Amino acid sequence: MQKPSIPKGTRDFSPEEMAKRNYIFDTIKNVYRLYGFRQIETPAMENLSTLMGKYGEEGDKLLFKILNSGNFLSSISTDDVKEGNSAKTAGKISEKGLRYDLTVPFARYVVMHRNEISFPFKRFQIQPVWRADRPQKGRYREFFQCDADVVGSDSLLNEVELIQIIDEVFRRLNIRVSVKLNNRKILSGIAEIIGEADKITDITVAIDKLDKIGLANVNEELRGKGISETAIQQLQPIILIGGTNNEKLTTLKSVLSSSETGLKGVEELEFILNKTGLLTIGCGLELDLTLARGLNYYTGAIIEVKALDVEIGSITGGGRYDNLTGIFGLSGVSGVGISFGADRIYDVLDQLSLFPDNSTHTTDVLFVNFGDKEESCLLPILSQLRSNGICAEIYPEAAKMKKQMSYADNNNIPFVALVGENEIKEGKVTLKEMQSGEQTALSVDELIQKLAHQK
Amino acid sequence: MQKPSIPKGTRDFSPEEMAKRNYIFDTIKNVYRLYGFRQIETPAMENLSTLMGKYGEEGDKLLFKILNSGNFLSSISTDDVKEGNSAKTAGKISEKGLRYDLTVPFARYVVMHRNEISFPFKRFQIQPVWRADRPQKGRYREFFQCDADVVGSDSLLNEVELIQIIDEVFRRLNIRVSVKLNNRKILSGIAEIIGEADKITDITVAIDKLDKIGLANVNEELRGKGISETAIQQLQPIILIGGTNNEKLTTLKSVLSSSETGLKGVEELEFILNKTGLLTIGCGLELDLTLARGLNYYTGAIIEVKALDVEIGSITGGGRYDNLTGIFGLSGVSGVGISFGADRIYDVLDQLSLFPDNSTHTTDVLFVNFGDKEESCLLPILSQLRSNGICAEIYPEAAKMKKQMSYADNNNIPFVALVGENEIKEGKVTLKEMQSGEQTALSVDELIQKLAHQK
Repeated sequence: MQKPSIPKGTRDFSPEEMAKRNYIFDTIKNVYRLYGFRQIETPAMENLSTLMGKYGEEGDKLLFKILNSGNFLSSISTDDVKEGNSAKTAGKISEKGLRYDLTVPFARYVVMHRNEISFPFKRFQIQPVWRADRPQKGRYREFFQCDADVVGSDSLLNEVELIQIIDEVFRRLNIRVSVKLNNRKILSGIAEIIGEADKITDITVAIDKLDKIGLANVNEELRGKGISETAIQQLQPIILIGGTNNEKLTTLKSVLSSSETGLKGVEELEFILNKTGLLTIGCGLELDLTLARGLNYYTGAIIEVKALDVEIGSITGGGRYDNLTGIFGLSGVSGVGISFGADRIYDVLDQLSLFPDNSTHTTDVLFVNFGDKEESCLLPILSQLRSNGICAEIYPEAAKMKKQMSYADNNNIPFVALVGENEIKEGKVTLKEMQSGEQTALSVDELIQKLAHQK
Repeated sequence: MQKPSIPKGTRDFSPEEMAKRNYIFDTIKNVYRLYGFRQIETPAMENLSTLMGKYGEEGDKLLFKILNSGNFLSSISTDDVKEGNSAKTAGKISEKGLRYDLTVPFARYVVMHRNEISFPFKRFQIQPVWRADRPQKGRYREFFQCDADVVGSDSLLNEVELIQIIDEVFRRLNIRVSVKLNNRKILSGIAEIIGEADKITDITVAIDKLDKIGLANVNEELRGKGISETAIQQLQPIILIGGTNNEKLTTLKSVLSSSETGLKGVEELEFILNKTGLLTIGCGLELDLTLARGLNYYTGAIIEVKALDVEIGSITGGGRYDNLTGIFGLSGVSGVGISFGADRIYDVLDQLSLFPDNSTHTTDVLFVNFGDKEESCLLPILSQLRSNGICAEIYPEAAKMKKQMSYADNNNIPFVALVGENEIKEGKVTLKEMQSGEQTALSVDELIQKLAHQK
């Protein structure tokens, strides 16, 4: 008899894990909806022509490909086997793959449905994605992304609202976070003034090390990357940039005064900080020039969120990208979006014990089963409770009391109701609170009131 | 430039479709939860060893198989290509497949997690499944199943509760249905008394035709299937069975008096009908001997639901199966479950225009954007609305009024708020009801009251 297992890097989610995950997903969904984002879903499988070449060479390798149905062998020759080029042969026997992220399918969606969409299109999407990565702690081959994007609008108000959304989600989840902001145009401006456009990544990496290795070593590292002495001198105010966001913006305006692009970036950041300043944003917003995630991808704002109380890397990120749909033939559609990292947020909540108690209790009350006669009395009572929105179950058979009690215990059911011969005679229900052990005799109406009140 | 498309048999779901689908899923989930069912999820990919051989030969062919990552070609030889046996070769280059239903992964789950589960285990699961079927109207290669099962309990109370769930879900959805019941043991009993165990399908098919072709032709068809004259005579009361459920049970008891199995089936059905009789079940429950779905699979109750007002086949089905987990080495676990057909339910609701109006409206109010100054005034008002649970958005740029209005229109937003220079001076918001065109000037508090009231 086979011993069952699941593919490595994939997970089952138990009722308790699902309840916790739903708590996260529901929080994110509710906030997305409050801001007018609308949900879409796309198929798990996309044509490989949609996916290939969109995630770089490494990404292509990490796509899960679906074997064509039927007689796929007729599409390859013995020469293919001899040649041994698996990537090339895969293209002959597989024309579909599993979604690698939600962004490319979304771009494909926008292009396919552009005549039905009323732009600006504010969509959110919460679905699993699959990557044939090497599984390791915290990295899975199937995981969920929770994306929101606005496409078809250049307005920076979208950036402002996305930051509000981030703030609101983490406020609701009780996670203290810091939101780091940058702008691709500022990074381009820096590269422009020192004449080293292709070294921008080296520069951000070096700047990031200032606290750890000191100014002399940062400059040494820049020299090692082939950056000229003049450029390094021009970079000094940027490497040493500090103070409040406003002080940083002032420094940047002066350093980038000769770069139109750079100044545009500063202006964009100023707009975002001014508008968010009008609002009650609980989390700290910090201008961070070392933030360069998705550098080849983003064209304006870059956003990243870190949890303050757990070392875990970024738990949310996003930014503005121009020409999202250009790859599918629809140009001039700008977009800005964010993505919550549900798995990492789960880990943060778990480590800090921040899941609310009631996020894992599902059933409100279990009725103990004393036998057929009592069952018949209880079924209408159960219906009455349920029609009042109370999640109620009856143990399906008259098992030993101990067994029924440990069922309630194992399933986090907070109350057990006992209705035996005496209770039936008196028209009462004995309600036992599992945690305290306290027992009360209640009428059905009182029971409904009590349980509805607990929810 | 490539013109994007999606794999045949798959679908994108637009915001409006998602809202309607969520209405169905949420209704089902809420009812499942009221009855104490707990949600689980399993990975999209399962090992092929888990899936193969579980759905018959045809099912094996309909599994979507995932090509192994990396150098899969090294696992096959030129002989494999020459032999041309795709099914056999697939086994060498693919070890994972996409979930074909939710039942086999659930059985696998129960066996893998049996030490963590507190039985009886009442689980529900709503996830997509994939089948490489030929796509046709109403049949997709990716579709959702909405299953609830109780495993580890023989109690017929589970059947009763599943019927209550069916009744409650369709009551909430406003779909008039008829629930048909049968029992595999009754069918076995019939086969037993006439000594034709392997002809049971032929018999149910023939009985089903009575209304259409008449008794003489039914008997002729039975003769054609090689059923003896004596057996056909014994079958007469069953073919002509009619009247109320109780009258049918009386007939069955007499016909099946010599079959222990058959009488057990009658007794089970009687229990279910007696207990549901104590409850307010809105839909009709009908004992239907022609119901034989999943005959090789079910061992007790068989349940099927038809919509009364749309011709569409079964929209929900289920039954009891013994030994669900036997295939994975855990025997003696009996289960009973149901599955709602979400796609067909969608079609029924659509055809009968039963989706509630508010199921497709997501945003409650759109604020017209008059420019930067007004934006700054509006952002705090928007925050106030949202913190009162009102879904509110502002058009992200000061576009032409007509464009902003048609955005509200296209997105089913029922109210538009206008806050221009005058309104700012007076501390008022002009609220326009899109459908009537009626405009009212309101304070922010009044606005919140009005919109909260509409929800």
